[in-house]
Amino acid sequence: MTRPDGTQRSWSTRREDKQRRLQRAAAFADGRVLKPDRIVEALEAVIASGDRVALEGDNQKQADFLSRSLARVDPAKVHDLHMLVSSISRPEQIDIFETGIARRIDFAYAGPQSLRVAQLLEDGKLEVGAIHTYVELYARMFVDLTPRVALVAAEKGDRHGNLYTGANTEDTPTIVEATAFGGGIVIAQVNEIVDTLPRVDIPGGWVDFVVEADRPAAIEPLFTRDPRLITEQHILMAMLAIRGVYERHGVLSLNHGIGFNTAAIELLLPTYGEALGLKGKICRHWTLNPHPTLIPAIESGWVESVHCFGGEVGMERYIEARSDVFFTGPDGSLRSNRVLCQLAGQYAVDMFIGATLQIDGDANSSTVTTGRLAGFGGAPNMGHDPGGRRHASKAWLDLKTDPGPTARGHKLVVQMAETFQSGGVPTFVEELDAVEVGRAAGMPIAPVMIYGDDVSHVVTEEGVAYLYLARDEEERRAALAAVAGVSPIGLRHDPSRTDDLRRRGLVAYPEDLGVRPTDARRSLLAARSIDDLVAWSGGLYEPPARFRSY
Amino acid sequence: MTRPDGTQRSWSTRREDKQRRLQRAAAFADGRVLKPDRIVEALEAVIASGDRVALEGDNQKQADFLSRSLARVDPAKVHDLHMLVSSISRPEQIDIFETGIARRIDFAYAGPQSLRVAQLLEDGKLEVGAIHTYVELYARMFVDLTPRVALVAAEKGDRHGNLYTGANTEDTPTIVEATAFGGGIVIAQVNEIVDTLPRVDIPGGWVDFVVEADRPAAIEPLFTRDPRLITEQHILMAMLAIRGVYERHGVLSLNHGIGFNTAAIELLLPTYGEALGLKGKICRHWTLNPHPTLIPAIESGWVESVHCFGGEVGMERYIEARSDVFFTGPDGSLRSNRVLCQLAGQYAVDMFIGATLQIDGDANSSTVTTGRLAGFGGAPNMGHDPGGRRHASKAWLDLKTDPGPTARGHKLVVQMAETFQSGGVPTFVEELDAVEVGRAAGMPIAPVMIYGDDVSHVVTEEGVAYLYLARDEEERRAALAAVAGVSPIGLRHDPSRTDDLRRRGLVAYPEDLGVRPTDARRSLLAARSIDDLVAWSGGLYEPPARFRSY
Repeated sequence: MTRPDGTQRSWSTRREDKQRRLQRAAAFADGRVLKPDRIVEALEAVIASGDRVALEGDNQKQADFLSRSLARVDPAKVHDLHMLVSSISRPEQIDIFETGIARRIDFAYAGPQSLRVAQLLEDGKLEVGAIHTYVELYARMFVDLTPRVALVAAEKGDRHGNLYTGANTEDTPTIVEATAFGGGIVIAQVNEIVDTLPRVDIPGGWVDFVVEADRPAAIEPLFTRDPRLITEQHILMAMLAIRGVYERHGVLSLNHGIGFNTAAIELLLPTYGEALGLKGKICRHWTLNPHPTLIPAIESGWVESVHCFGGEVGMERYIEARSDVFFTGPDGSLRSNRVLCQLAGQYAVDMFIGATLQIDGDANSSTVTTGRLAGFGGAPNMGHDPGGRRHASKAWLDLKTDPGPTARGHKLVVQMAETFQSGGVPTFVEELDAVEVGRAAGMPIAPVMIYGDDVSHVVTEEGVAYLYLARDEEERRAALAAVAGVSPIGLRHDPSRTDDLRRRGLVAYPEDLGVRPTDARRSLLAARSIDDLVAWSGGLYEPPARFRSY
Repeated sequence: MTRPDGTQRSWSTRREDKQRRLQRAAAFADGRVLKPDRIVEALEAVIASGDRVALEGDNQKQADFLSRSLARVDPAKVHDLHMLVSSISRPEQIDIFETGIARRIDFAYAGPQSLRVAQLLEDGKLEVGAIHTYVELYARMFVDLTPRVALVAAEKGDRHGNLYTGANTEDTPTIVEATAFGGGIVIAQVNEIVDTLPRVDIPGGWVDFVVEADRPAAIEPLFTRDPRLITEQHILMAMLAIRGVYERHGVLSLNHGIGFNTAAIELLLPTYGEALGLKGKICRHWTLNPHPTLIPAIESGWVESVHCFGGEVGMERYIEARSDVFFTGPDGSLRSNRVLCQLAGQYAVDMFIGATLQIDGDANSSTVTTGRLAGFGGAPNMGHDPGGRRHASKAWLDLKTDPGPTARGHKLVVQMAETFQSGGVPTFVEELDAVEVGRAAGMPIAPVMIYGDDVSHVVTEEGVAYLYLARDEEERRAALAAVAGVSPIGLRHDPSRTDDLRRRGLVAYPEDLGVRPTDARRSLLAARSIDDLVAWSGGLYEPPARFRSY
């Protein structure tokens, strides 16, 4: 056996290169504190052309001082960067592709910038590595997409690099861990540099530089739903879901999406749910952002725990005053963590329920409907039956239909959708728009959000389809069509089969569930306005200005 | 709308109760440092009967000073605890059920203690909440199993509670995060209390007490495989896997289990793999513990990155000298993280490949074969096709067989097994022992480790079955039987179908893959002993005494 050690290869090239870069940047810093007015020079010193750079654009929090500064570096000095941005939200995150500073991007969501992404892709100025779910993109940072440089955001920092993220911890610890221990360089923008932090969310040893931002990091209130916009149709569907899914299966732990349908469910728990005697029997443990519409259920004693992906603007004082329910630090503020909440939402809860914009006849669904390459976000991480789950819960076992010796349960993966979107556009379609969008963008597979074979239930205003009870694909399609109204898929339905499907429990209409559509009134909502939510919170919830009526 | 605030309910009961407990324990501490000789009294002060207590028993690292101390508390004062122990490894973790200190347990793996768990279960002295995979159990800590008290282990701590975990970070940050931010109490045993830590792995603000242990925390070298025990049969299977799976699909990123089959693959890369011209084309990114048998492949330049669940005894100096490959801190030592590595192994890699002890005709497999309730560990988290994955890789797309517009790729989930175990016990069986074990233990479902519907390939000494190419269940079973030798499943095989299965690519025998069984010699191994591994490492690998020949 020979050991090929004739060459004197260095095995710490990343570490040595990092030290050189840090030395170059030292001119623009006082110890670990970068001078804000020298930030562009500092980035030019730290970042090399072709680097893989993680720029923190989370679902909510944006390292926007750093992204605006990155857009100002000299493309002659720094170019062809490979960007990792989980949620592309800001124009300057895309501007850098027009100027040549960046060339390639791996991302998870590009909602507000998706048209520009598509345009630059077509113009050959931007290459897409892949479109991921949030968790996938972080996972790859530990495998084949480890960042050379990470540009992240926190609320406060100290001179030793310790970071306090406040309520929006989100993805910061994960990005920093991958970069710092992968031999990369971490720069954190903070709203304020202080001597003593309220708490340490990320140890200073993991952070190379902090810099005080010109203004607080941008954070969007993405999870605030104004109860005034909840319609009687939403309420009817919420009643069907509560009786036909939550009550039937005894759903104790769950994730809710951000739609008005699930907001309606949250607001029906203290009224309709209470009248059905369901308190304590459903909805005790939650994985979701701190939705203001959950306040009445919390105040009424329905909710034992809430673990959060991120925070929500205006909920800070309320959360601090409800530490029995929320995960908070000794300082009182929320500790969120997107990776851990996604993990909880994937493996530990009974149910994922979410709204969608399009469903095909096989129950595949997508929110891609407009020709935009919007990406996935986090829904697919929770909206599937996790193959790695082994523990049982009542709800999970309820969905075990195979009597065989090696059969297992199934997570409740529920899709809620009205049969038509506003403007009379059908939700149930022959082919998802995503198929054509994916084809046009040259994607290797169509950007399906939730795959039909994972979906256990579909709830519409017509009723509930219990897809997990179907014996075969044909029967699945028939059950789905039976709740698809007069959409193209619904019109396929053969009404002569309906009785059989209802009798065998594959389809339930409102009367089968004891729900009277005429009872679906807004008066059932525990809160009918943002002001009502503020009142329920005892004045602790402080809605952002755009949601205030006063 | 009325707000039901007539009652003056407190919403910070956990926080207030925690303060009372901390005050009681203050008598046994100097600030945050507990006096080791008062540890039993301190635990009695901090833990209340009925509490949910997370005791760090990881796959490798054990908080054994704390578990031994917990076994000494007065059962009249502290009883009926609900324990969360990911890997039950030590006798005192079970003794506490005999004395009544504990009553209920949620766990992931109980290998060495599984017989006693089964006995106490039968005697009614122990209740099992559920048996999980590692990641599931942590996930539930953020949902419905948040610990009231966590007893964890680190290498060093300081008087402020900051912890340095060294190479075996494993599960500590996750358990501490769930407990600390869930309003619980965190006690960490450390080998040593020092003024200045080599690095901070867990911030002091998350930890209530540190205590110096009477001896270093127990850590098992679970991932060391002595090359002397690799047989020519292992080598043949490794050659089949390299040609029939790794090369064929261009597997760039992967997880390896701990068996001798995969150790053989690691040791064939610098020899057989090199001769095939595969360097750079396969096996560049790894998620696994730092296997000593990976050293020759690393030294030969095959390996770009390794992210680890935990550490491995004896690999410390080698890892420090190879920071381009491993995730390490500024102190030079490994930063492992089980949750993040599991996440990477689930979502970010092309392939999971593992050994198993039993496979049934549908390719379901289990390591439960002896009547023991051993649990799952982490394999199922990676050994399935993750429904939440959306990005494509070449290998993943290679397994896409459906031409439909919404079809997707598939993770390579590969099972490697000789058709017979030692002693002539068949690996391929009509029914898994797990079915009867689960039934006898009253489990709601059988403890299947990897489900057949997730498995894409099975490799035996007979050949490779490409199950993902099967058109239906019957054909899957036929392909599997074709590589199952003269086991009960293999004898089912109709030899007249073999040609068709081989022609259509569902089955490949050695000659189909260009592998000559007579070439499968131990001389092909890059290292044939532990000493060889030490030599490859340039003396940096320091094997534990039990593996040394000198």
